[in-house]
Amino acid sequence: MLPLAVSLGDPAGIGPELIAAAWRMRQAERLPPFFVVGGADILVAAAASGGHDLPIMRVSGTDGAAAAFADALPVLELPDAASPAYTPGHPTREGAALALSSLTLATRMALSDAASGLVTGPIAKSLLAEVGFDFPGQTEFLAAACDVEAEDAVMMLAGPQLRTVPLTVHCALADVPGRLTAELICRRARITAAALQRDFGIDRPRLAVAGLNPHAGEDGKFGDEEARIIAPAIASLRAEGLEVTGPHPADALFTARARPTYDAALCMYHDQALIPLKTLDFDSGVNVTLGLPMIRTSPDHGTAFDIAGKGVADPGAMIAAIRMAGEMAARRMPAHR
Amino acid sequence: MLPLAVSLGDPAGIGPELIAAAWRMRQAERLPPFFVVGGADILVAAAASGGHDLPIMRVSGTDGAAAAFADALPVLELPDAASPAYTPGHPTREGAALALSSLTLATRMALSDAASGLVTGPIAKSLLAEVGFDFPGQTEFLAAACDVEAEDAVMMLAGPQLRTVPLTVHCALADVPGRLTAELICRRARITAAALQRDFGIDRPRLAVAGLNPHAGEDGKFGDEEARIIAPAIASLRAEGLEVTGPHPADALFTARARPTYDAALCMYHDQALIPLKTLDFDSGVNVTLGLPMIRTSPDHGTAFDIAGKGVADPGAMIAAIRMAGEMAARRMPAHR
Repeated sequence: MLPLAVSLGDPAGIGPELIAAAWRMRQAERLPPFFVVGGADILVAAAASGGHDLPIMRVSGTDGAAAAFADALPVLELPDAASPAYTPGHPTREGAALALSSLTLATRMALSDAASGLVTGPIAKSLLAEVGFDFPGQTEFLAAACDVEAEDAVMMLAGPQLRTVPLTVHCALADVPGRLTAELICRRARITAAALQRDFGIDRPRLAVAGLNPHAGEDGKFGDEEARIIAPAIASLRAEGLEVTGPHPADALFTARARPTYDAALCMYHDQALIPLKTLDFDSGVNVTLGLPMIRTSPDHGTAFDIAGKGVADPGAMIAAIRMAGEMAARRMPAHR
Repeated sequence: MLPLAVSLGDPAGIGPELIAAAWRMRQAERLPPFFVVGGADILVAAAASGGHDLPIMRVSGTDGAAAAFADALPVLELPDAASPAYTPGHPTREGAALALSSLTLATRMALSDAASGLVTGPIAKSLLAEVGFDFPGQTEFLAAACDVEAEDAVMMLAGPQLRTVPLTVHCALADVPGRLTAELICRRARITAAALQRDFGIDRPRLAVAGLNPHAGEDGKFGDEEARIIAPAIASLRAEGLEVTGPHPADALFTARARPTYDAALCMYHDQALIPLKTLDFDSGVNVTLGLPMIRTSPDHGTAFDIAGKGVADPGAMIAAIRMAGEMAARRMPAHR
């Protein structure tokens, strides 16, 4: 399998030290080979801040990366990128520019099959916006890069005990009801089911759809979105042969008893999907983008500037993101088809 | 300590069998003495449905209940109440009338200090409405019975790992933003802090306030309720000397690392409070009503008609509700003052 491309993330955040930690634990964690795009000096400095020597190998392409991985962290040189100093906790415009260059080239490599998939380090959106990044998040950037409609790039959060798909993401809670449509639910459900089959090896994916309102509206007493939008969407998905249940009261959907009854929960808004996931497994949640022609995962946390460079950030989610991307890539290889 | 009054709940639900189970486990679980108001035949039949003999003692007042508790489940006779057959899973109007009579008398006893507190069994609101119950839930009924304004009867959900207070409860999600005011947050926060001191023995309660929007609005990018309503409320509570933090991004507030940093989380809507609690501890969540002159707890689950009478319902939450009411009552006794 070709190595995965890993983008650096903001150089002042915890991304670089987590990537270094993941490489260090590559054998114990049985991680697939990967290389980082750009930021060689940052990576070495970030590892050193935690007391670790990091052997790196500057490579110019995927072949070199695969050969180097066992003995050093392969870093693909970024032509023309500035090489900012390592200033953990103090993000800079120059650092944001490096993060954007890294993300752009890593995406291009995954998209052109020069890498078997993309794992993205955490970025700071407000700083990236200042250097020309005109997207609400990396997911939307990737949709545009892949020429996929933004609403067909489906964010799935995957932890050891739960997978959730938020149908609306970065919008005010007051705007959520107006954004829900049966068509949105159906499109995302189809993309989710197809990805669970192809990339997660689940023959017949079971989707559970959450209600929007408390008690899923309790027969229309608290809101009518369940009857007007969600239930019709579920009915039409079932008519297509998909295994879909709901609308379920959201507070009952994530209990220990309910979780094993479905493969992914479709959630109406950001916190409905994120609260249960982070309540259960804060340090190992993976953000997966479904519906793209390429594989993309990411640790489900931010730059955590407040703890960057202190050697305390937990690499669990970065490791899980790399492992998951590797597993997904393996399932797309010819032997699995 | 005087015994606690327990209301039967809907006789066709899991309430009666759980009360019987709690009495059976009174020694192992070190439960305080309690009596049930009405439904003696139902309780015996519900216990029998699970294969258990239940000794009951019909009593006419609190003294008899205290004396009987060690050897039999004391049941206070309900004058004039119908005695419906035990039909688990098949609620009836007659059963709803019994549930309402039980709740009404149990409330009166707790309010008149003839019982040290009230533990309520789960009811079916739609059926109760048919027999004259004109409240959205038991909490609102109790507020009216106690002559407390409905918004000052504060619902707190308490599990072994987490306490949450939803500031809005049974309303459509679309109506939540319009219902939030700084005054509402402040009133509920004060009541919560006072109750944590008086009834939970926490000298200096730490309250964490959740944001409404994803990432708590991310500096106003997704909604302005944090800046307009929540942050000013927090500022004024802090000016009063209360220990209050936030607004916190809701998805970060319930992680294993965040939970030990506060004694209760104030949440903006039902599912924000209920999802993390039930994700963690479905079978032991207790619903506590703060701000009433009496103590009131309840298992945080419904009638579960689908499993009633089958001997499979978990008594954990009922046991936790009885134990918590007993602990709260003990703290109100003179020795603790």
